[in-house]
Amino acid sequence: MWKMKKKYSIGVDYGSLSGRAVLVEVETGKEVATAVKPYTNAVMDEYLCDGVTKLGSDWALQHPADYLEVLEITIPAVLKEAGVDAEDVIGVGIDFTACTVLPTDKEGVPLCFKDEYKSNPHSYVKLWKHHAAQEEANKLNEIAAKRGEEFLKWYGGKISSEWLVPKVWQLLNEAPEIYDAMDRFIEAADWVVWQLCGEEKRNSCTAGYKAMWHKQKGYPSKEFFKELDPRLENLVDEKLSRDIYSIGGKAGEINEKASKLTGLKVGTAVAIANVDAHVSLPAVGITEAGKMLLIIGTSTCDILLGTEEKIVPGMCGVVEDGVLPGFLGYESGQSCVGDHFDWFVKNYAPVSYAKEASEKGISVFELLTKKAAAYKVGESGLVALDWWNGNRSVLVDVDLTGLFLGMTLQTKPEEMYRALIEATAYGVRMIVETFRENGVPIDELYSCGGIAAKDELLMQIYADVTNMEIRISASNQTPALGSAMFGAVAAGKSKGGFDSIVDAAKDMGKVREKYYKPIPSNVEAYNKLYAEYKILHDYFGRGENDVMKRLKDIKEEARNK
Amino acid sequence: MWKMKKKYSIGVDYGSLSGRAVLVEVETGKEVATAVKPYTNAVMDEYLCDGVTKLGSDWALQHPADYLEVLEITIPAVLKEAGVDAEDVIGVGIDFTACTVLPTDKEGVPLCFKDEYKSNPHSYVKLWKHHAAQEEANKLNEIAAKRGEEFLKWYGGKISSEWLVPKVWQLLNEAPEIYDAMDRFIEAADWVVWQLCGEEKRNSCTAGYKAMWHKQKGYPSKEFFKELDPRLENLVDEKLSRDIYSIGGKAGEINEKASKLTGLKVGTAVAIANVDAHVSLPAVGITEAGKMLLIIGTSTCDILLGTEEKIVPGMCGVVEDGVLPGFLGYESGQSCVGDHFDWFVKNYAPVSYAKEASEKGISVFELLTKKAAAYKVGESGLVALDWWNGNRSVLVDVDLTGLFLGMTLQTKPEEMYRALIEATAYGVRMIVETFRENGVPIDELYSCGGIAAKDELLMQIYADVTNMEIRISASNQTPALGSAMFGAVAAGKSKGGFDSIVDAAKDMGKVREKYYKPIPSNVEAYNKLYAEYKILHDYFGRGENDVMKRLKDIKEEARNK
Repeated sequence: MWKMKKKYSIGVDYGSLSGRAVLVEVETGKEVATAVKPYTNAVMDEYLCDGVTKLGSDWALQHPADYLEVLEITIPAVLKEAGVDAEDVIGVGIDFTACTVLPTDKEGVPLCFKDEYKSNPHSYVKLWKHHAAQEEANKLNEIAAKRGEEFLKWYGGKISSEWLVPKVWQLLNEAPEIYDAMDRFIEAADWVVWQLCGEEKRNSCTAGYKAMWHKQKGYPSKEFFKELDPRLENLVDEKLSRDIYSIGGKAGEINEKASKLTGLKVGTAVAIANVDAHVSLPAVGITEAGKMLLIIGTSTCDILLGTEEKIVPGMCGVVEDGVLPGFLGYESGQSCVGDHFDWFVKNYAPVSYAKEASEKGISVFELLTKKAAAYKVGESGLVALDWWNGNRSVLVDVDLTGLFLGMTLQTKPEEMYRALIEATAYGVRMIVETFRENGVPIDELYSCGGIAAKDELLMQIYADVTNMEIRISASNQTPALGSAMFGAVAAGKSKGGFDSIVDAAKDMGKVREKYYKPIPSNVEAYNKLYAEYKILHDYFGRGENDVMKRLKDIKEEARNK
Repeated sequence: MWKMKKKYSIGVDYGSLSGRAVLVEVETGKEVATAVKPYTNAVMDEYLCDGVTKLGSDWALQHPADYLEVLEITIPAVLKEAGVDAEDVIGVGIDFTACTVLPTDKEGVPLCFKDEYKSNPHSYVKLWKHHAAQEEANKLNEIAAKRGEEFLKWYGGKISSEWLVPKVWQLLNEAPEIYDAMDRFIEAADWVVWQLCGEEKRNSCTAGYKAMWHKQKGYPSKEFFKELDPRLENLVDEKLSRDIYSIGGKAGEINEKASKLTGLKVGTAVAIANVDAHVSLPAVGITEAGKMLLIIGTSTCDILLGTEEKIVPGMCGVVEDGVLPGFLGYESGQSCVGDHFDWFVKNYAPVSYAKEASEKGISVFELLTKKAAAYKVGESGLVALDWWNGNRSVLVDVDLTGLFLGMTLQTKPEEMYRALIEATAYGVRMIVETFRENGVPIDELYSCGGIAAKDELLMQIYADVTNMEIRISASNQTPALGSAMFGAVAAGKSKGGFDSIVDAAKDMGKVREKYYKPIPSNVEAYNKLYAEYKILHDYFGRGENDVMKRLKDIKEEARNK
C-alpha cells in the first residue's frame, strides 16, 4: 500500500524575550519538535546594547539582529531534532508581538545596522511595551477627537501610546535625522517576512489594529497627519505603505539568502505575518463567529470573529481581515490578570504560608490556589475590582485603580487571592455582555496561555461567572502552532497544505478533550456577586465617583513636592 | 524643718486577663510600685473551670474568686515593694472592664461559690465580651424602637448585646432557676467594692452606660421590661437597685474582712467603682469640657465631658455623672483599631519583610511603620474604610466591612499599612465632627494606651488628620492611676487626699511634655483625602449602596449550604 510522505510546516513565534520555532505535522497538527532562542540583547530598557547610551524612562527597545538569530538557530534545530528533511517542509509562518516597529532603508536594512546610526536609540526596534510616546498619543487623541475622526470609534475611542503613529511621531520629534534617513517604518513581523522572501508585504492585522488602517477607508487623511505635525503629512506614502495584504495569504517564498540562513529550501512558502494573539484563533479550531478566545497571561487579550462591523464601546479594535480573512476581527482585553496574582503573592503572602508551601513542596501560588478552592462561592464575603493596572475594556481608562471590599478580621489571604481571580472573571463577563449588547454574539469561550493550561480553579470560576463552556487549547505553544497553520495555507493544497485557514483549522487546530462546564448552583451564586461588581464598576468607572483619579492626582502632587 | 509624712493611694485596675495594683504618691501622682496578678481562670470561653462543662459559642465567663486573689496578692505586694506602711495609704479605688456582671445572694456571695450552682455556667461572671445574648439584644432593640423608648437616643439608637439587660435576659431564658435564686445581679466593679467595704454601692458610670439608667429619668419603665418578658417586670427592684452613687464619691471604708485580705488598715477610704476607660480622664488631667480622650488599643474608646445633654448620632452613650461628677460624660468609639494592624501584619507581611525585620533586630510592626513613615501624605494613592469589625461610632453598624481602594501593581505593603492607620484617623475625625455638629465642642485631644505611648507615626497622622494638638498620658498604667486618684478623693483633704477629683487631677494627673502638633502642609493634604473618605463613608455606610450587608448575607447563605 502506497503512503504519501508526511508534510510539515514551521511556525515561528516571536515573544517579548525569546523566539520559538515549532515543527508541525500538517496532516494532524502534531507538534514534532520545538526550539527556543532567547534574544541576545533581550529588552533594552536602561541602556542601549553599547552599554553606555542611557535610555529614557518607559523606553523598551530590541535589536533586529536577534530576530535573525532566532531563524538561524531554531529552524535548523527543529529540523534536526525531528529528523525531518527540509524538502518536506512546505511552509513557514511567523507571528510577533505588536506594535513592535523599526526604521529601515529601502532595501529593508535596519538603520541600527549602519555605523552612522547605531548609537542612536531611535534607530532600533521599539518593542510593544515602549511607553515613551504617551505625550504624542495624548496629543493625537486630542486632535482626533476635536476633528471628529471616524477611526476613533473602531478603537474604543482611544489610540494607545503603544501603537505605530505615536511611536513614529516620537521618533520624528526626538530624532528627525532618523526620520529623514529611513525609507520604511515597519512592523518587525513584516520585516522578518521581508528577510525570508525578499518582499515587503505588510499584513492586515497590525495595519488594522496598530496603524489605524481600515480595509474600506484606508489610513486617516493627510490633513489629519498634517495637523499632528506638518512633517507627518505624507507619512503613509513616504514611510509606510498602502499595500496591505490579508492574513491567510502567501507573502512569497524562501529566497537564496533565507535558505542559507535557515536551512529551508528555496521556494518554501512564507505566510503573511501575524500577531501572536490573533494567530492563536485557528490553532484552537475557531473559524467562525461567536467564539471568543481568551489568551490569558500577565494581561488577557480577547479575540473574537464577527460577520458585521459593530461599534462596541471600549473594544481595542475591530478590523476586517484582521484575524481571519472574510471576517471582522474584534479585539478587547484586560490590562491586568496574571499580574494581579503576582502582585499579591509577591507582596502579601505571609511567612506562615511560605513555610507551609515549602514543607509541602509546592509553590505559594499552588498553596493559595488550593486553600482558595476550598471556599464556596460567596463564602469569602469579598468583592474586588480588577483595575490594578487600569481598565482596558470596556472602560478604556488607565487611571482606574484597584479595590478590595468586604474584609473582616477573619479574612484570610486565600480569600483575598480568590477575590482577585473572581474580579478578573467579572471583567470577562463585563466584556462579553458589552459585545452582546452591541450586536456581536458570543456563545462559547476558548482559552490558551499558561494560566489557562494550569489553573483549574480560575478556569472553573470563569465558566461559572460567564455561564459558558470554556475549551482549552491542546497546545502549550498555541501561537507557534497557529503560525505553522498559516504556513501550510501559504503552501496550498497542491503542495500538501491547505487552501484555506478554515480547512487547516479542521485538521490542525485542537483543544483538550476536557473542558470546563458551568456548575448551575455556582452560576446562580455568581449572578448575585456579579450584580455587586457591576454596581461598583459603574460607580467608580463611569464618573459617579472619580475618587480613583483624584487620588492619582493627589499622589502625583505629593510625589512632586 | 517639719515635713508631713507622705501619703499614698492605691488604684486597682481589673483588665480582661489580669488585675494590676499601683501604689501612687498622693502629692505628686508618682507611681511608686506596681504588681500584676493574671487571673487563675483567665477567660472561660470553651469550658467551665470544672474542665467538663462545655460552653456555648460566643460565651466568655470569669471566676469572681480571681478578683479577690488580685486584692490578696497585689496590694500586699505593692506595699512591700514600696516599703510603705499601710497606715500611710489613705484610699483605694478600683476600675473594671464593663459590662462584666454576676449573680449573688443578698449578702453578695456569688452563686458560683455555692455547691448547688457551681456547675451552672450562668452562676459565673459574664465578661464584657460575652456575646451570646445577641438574640436578646435584637429583640430588646426591636421592642424599644416599636415603643419609641426615649432611652435609645442616649445610646446612639441601639443597645449592645454586651450590656446588662440582654445578659440578664439570657440568664433568665436559659437558667430561670439561677434567676430565681439570685438576689442581686451586679457589675463586678461594684461587687469588688462591696467586698472591700461591706456595702452595695452601685456606680453611676456602669449604671448609665451599661444598664440604661438616667440620672433624671431612672431606668426604663416596668411596662417596657414586662413587654420584654413578664418575668422581667420587676427586674430593677428585685435584682438591681435604684440607689446609684455618683463616681467621685466614697463608697465606704475597708472593713475587718477586707483588711485581713489586703493588709490595708480598717477605715481606709474606698471609692465608688469605675470603668477602665472612664477613670482615665482625670489621670491625664482632664477635668473640663471640650477635651476628648482616646484610649487606643485593639479598639478605641473615646471619653469626652460636656456641660449639656445633646443627642449625638452614633455615640455609645451620654450619662450625667458618668465620668466626672457634675458633667455629662459622652462615650464613643471605634470597634477596630489595633486589631486592623494585627490583622495586616499577621496575614499580609511578606517573607522578605520578616527577613529584613529580623536582620535589623526589629519587629515587623516596627519595620512597616518605618517604611510607611517615609511616605508623604497622599503619596500612596490609597484610601481605606476602617470597618474590619463594623463601625461603632457614628454609624453603629456591626455589618459594615473593610475597604481598600487605589491599589496599583506598584503598591507596597507599607502603603496598605499606612492606609489602615489613616483610615482609623479619618474615623476619629468623623466622630469629632459629628460631636461638634451636634453642639458638643471638642478643642483638644488626649490619648493613652500602648499605641499612643509608642506609635509616633500614628499619633502624628491623628494630629494632622484632625488638625488638633494631641497630648499623651505620662503614665503607662493610666486607668490604675485614675483609680488611685479617686481613692485619694474618697479619703478627702482632711486625710491628706483631695476634696474633689478636679483638685486631684491638678496634682496627680499628668501628660508627657512632648505632644503632637498638626503640621500645616499635612493638614491641608489630609483635608483632601478626608473628603474622599467621607464620600465613601456615606456611600457605603448610610444606605446608598448596601453592598457590604448583601455580601454578608451571601456569605451566610454560602456557609449554610
